[in-house]
Amino acid sequence: MSFAPVYLDWNATTPLDPQVREAMLPWLGAAEPIRFGNASSRHEYGRQARAAVDEARARVAAAVGAHATEVIFTSGGSEANNLFLKGAAACLKPGTVAVSAIEHPCVREPAKQLQRTGWTLKEIAVDAHGVIDAADWGATLQAKPALVSVMLANNETGVLQDIAALAAEARKPGAWFHTDAVQALGKAELDFRALGVNAMTLSAHKIGGPLGAGALVVDKRVELAPLIAGGGQERGLRSGTENVAAIVGFGVACERAVAHRETEAQRLALLRGEIETGLAALGATVFSRAAQRLPNTVFFAFGNIDGETLVGKLDRAGFACASGSACSSAQPEPSHTLLAMGVDPVVARGAVRVSLGRMTTADDVARFVATLSRVVEDLRKLASVAG
Amino acid sequence: MSFAPVYLDWNATTPLDPQVREAMLPWLGAAEPIRFGNASSRHEYGRQARAAVDEARARVAAAVGAHATEVIFTSGGSEANNLFLKGAAACLKPGTVAVSAIEHPCVREPAKQLQRTGWTLKEIAVDAHGVIDAADWGATLQAKPALVSVMLANNETGVLQDIAALAAEARKPGAWFHTDAVQALGKAELDFRALGVNAMTLSAHKIGGPLGAGALVVDKRVELAPLIAGGGQERGLRSGTENVAAIVGFGVACERAVAHRETEAQRLALLRGEIETGLAALGATVFSRAAQRLPNTVFFAFGNIDGETLVGKLDRAGFACASGSACSSAQPEPSHTLLAMGVDPVVARGAVRVSLGRMTTADDVARFVATLSRVVEDLRKLASVAG
Repeated sequence: MSFAPVYLDWNATTPLDPQVREAMLPWLGAAEPIRFGNASSRHEYGRQARAAVDEARARVAAAVGAHATEVIFTSGGSEANNLFLKGAAACLKPGTVAVSAIEHPCVREPAKQLQRTGWTLKEIAVDAHGVIDAADWGATLQAKPALVSVMLANNETGVLQDIAALAAEARKPGAWFHTDAVQALGKAELDFRALGVNAMTLSAHKIGGPLGAGALVVDKRVELAPLIAGGGQERGLRSGTENVAAIVGFGVACERAVAHRETEAQRLALLRGEIETGLAALGATVFSRAAQRLPNTVFFAFGNIDGETLVGKLDRAGFACASGSACSSAQPEPSHTLLAMGVDPVVARGAVRVSLGRMTTADDVARFVATLSRVVEDLRKLASVAG
Repeated sequence: MSFAPVYLDWNATTPLDPQVREAMLPWLGAAEPIRFGNASSRHEYGRQARAAVDEARARVAAAVGAHATEVIFTSGGSEANNLFLKGAAACLKPGTVAVSAIEHPCVREPAKQLQRTGWTLKEIAVDAHGVIDAADWGATLQAKPALVSVMLANNETGVLQDIAALAAEARKPGAWFHTDAVQALGKAELDFRALGVNAMTLSAHKIGGPLGAGALVVDKRVELAPLIAGGGQERGLRSGTENVAAIVGFGVACERAVAHRETEAQRLALLRGEIETGLAALGATVFSRAAQRLPNTVFFAFGNIDGETLVGKLDRAGFACASGSACSSAQPEPSHTLLAMGVDPVVARGAVRVSLGRMTTADDVARFVATLSRVVEDLRKLASVAG
């Protein structure tokens, strides 16, 4: 399977992995043995659905070093992040919630919403590389936050945080520590136990799984109120008829993403290196290059070239990449991640993200670099004529 | 396509309609033209995803007489019900929330949760037929509720409420009126404007659509806080990457369910009549028979026969039906709907629900009636021996 245009936006979403699809098709009535059913039903159809959900739960848990009973299926990463923040806050007296300045909006926005119910929001600063700022982290700990959320890998820069160290420090004074690991799954090592976090968010559609499935992996000591209350599914923490097809796909996707992680990481790091060599030749700024990053992500900008314009030109030339982050690209403001890193807003407006994935080939990358060079030179010529 | 065992639990969930599946498969990479993408991405893949979501939104809106801008896609009915109750409550001063005693748990539980934030819960009583009790409705209006939620069709009895009349009365003193129309869609006439409600919940998987998609259709005058905050999708009311495949399927399912509603209603009412004739011959009690009901649903009990036992016997004999409601059947308590109707708990424990759907045939029904007779007679013999 190949795609035209060339897809270089794997951090936004991914095409379905063929083996994931194969596992899902019976649950969509599109392959034998045809399956469907409400997993709460007490008849043959229901029991088959329940068994499939249980099997998927075991796969997801195994992929991230958790117990199956710690996996709460949700409709995706945004819901899981909201469930942790609002669900835990609802069971605590209002205190301080600390989230990093570079979190995805689905962590930042619920954290802001908590302010209306008496919570104090502490935004944890990052340094120029996009890594949690040591001094501000110290100040955060002194504020004795009840809830802390720091993402494992940033969706835009790809920067990895030392979550194990942060979690160990935050938990000492009694915080519940959560990490949004949506972008890390399948791209970085990920072990719930080793990280020592209380809760962790996962999403299927970033790793070759379907849209519509995610999970909050959560330590049972954390008391949570459900965001979606009702029939009592998922240990009463997430009601609603289980999306069996998507959950089955999520299980297989986790298994495969983890199995192929190391070889893919090496392969994609090399391809990204090719892109970064090309970017250097063109005089681009690569953000967070000095930090530990995901192997598949490069976030860059050219002076005097608007990111939206560049992405539009690349799109018309047959390459799909992102300006800012996909989920918030309806908003025209420059990337909040870059602003938090102290990047000049003018430079930040030039930001373009290229993220590679399982189907990205060396040929795709070579053609991308050549096209990028041509497009950038054209835009520079136009700018010099206009100037 | 036929199923074994015979599926008689269409109110719990439904197999995917073949035309719904056909529309979804490209979005799962399983049919040409292969499609995928994050609908927020500003490249070709993203634009295709956005166009597909927009088209589905128009289909859903058209099917229920609403404007496309009034449709907020969610992960399903449970989320939509929670979004209305919690989302509207978050924008109001605590007051009275009134929900009927026979609501699905995904309305009753969030209403109960609101009590923790200062709200008063008024449960609206029903009469012996399962219809909103006129006197208690009057008392409800006197309490001047800020939020009212009454389901259009009950999932267990199939009883229809006169929502247009209730909504008109409740809105006079200023309540926001919501109806859970999950079971009504495709089985009863459903027009958002004609009902005069402020909000209405729909679900895809009850009408031949996929799991993972539902909607809150909502009048824009109702202010809502998002349950899932983040990237700002769905007019800021439901963040999270849109589940394009499921949303596309939901759109087609709505269109088809509405197009076939009248002919299916007539066909299924006749088939249900066959079952009720059989039940009468066996001396069963049919609940809510005197009320206006969905044409596909029959809820009944035999004296001295446990519902769970009967469902188990029927399952082994090749017929899948429900005892109590599927979503809450993990709980062993008798149906709260029947208890609210004043049915003796001993009788309520005998309750079995049969719900028919698009693939139910006259032959299925004839064989079901014959098998039910045999099973009931066997159980009665056992009981008389044991007695």
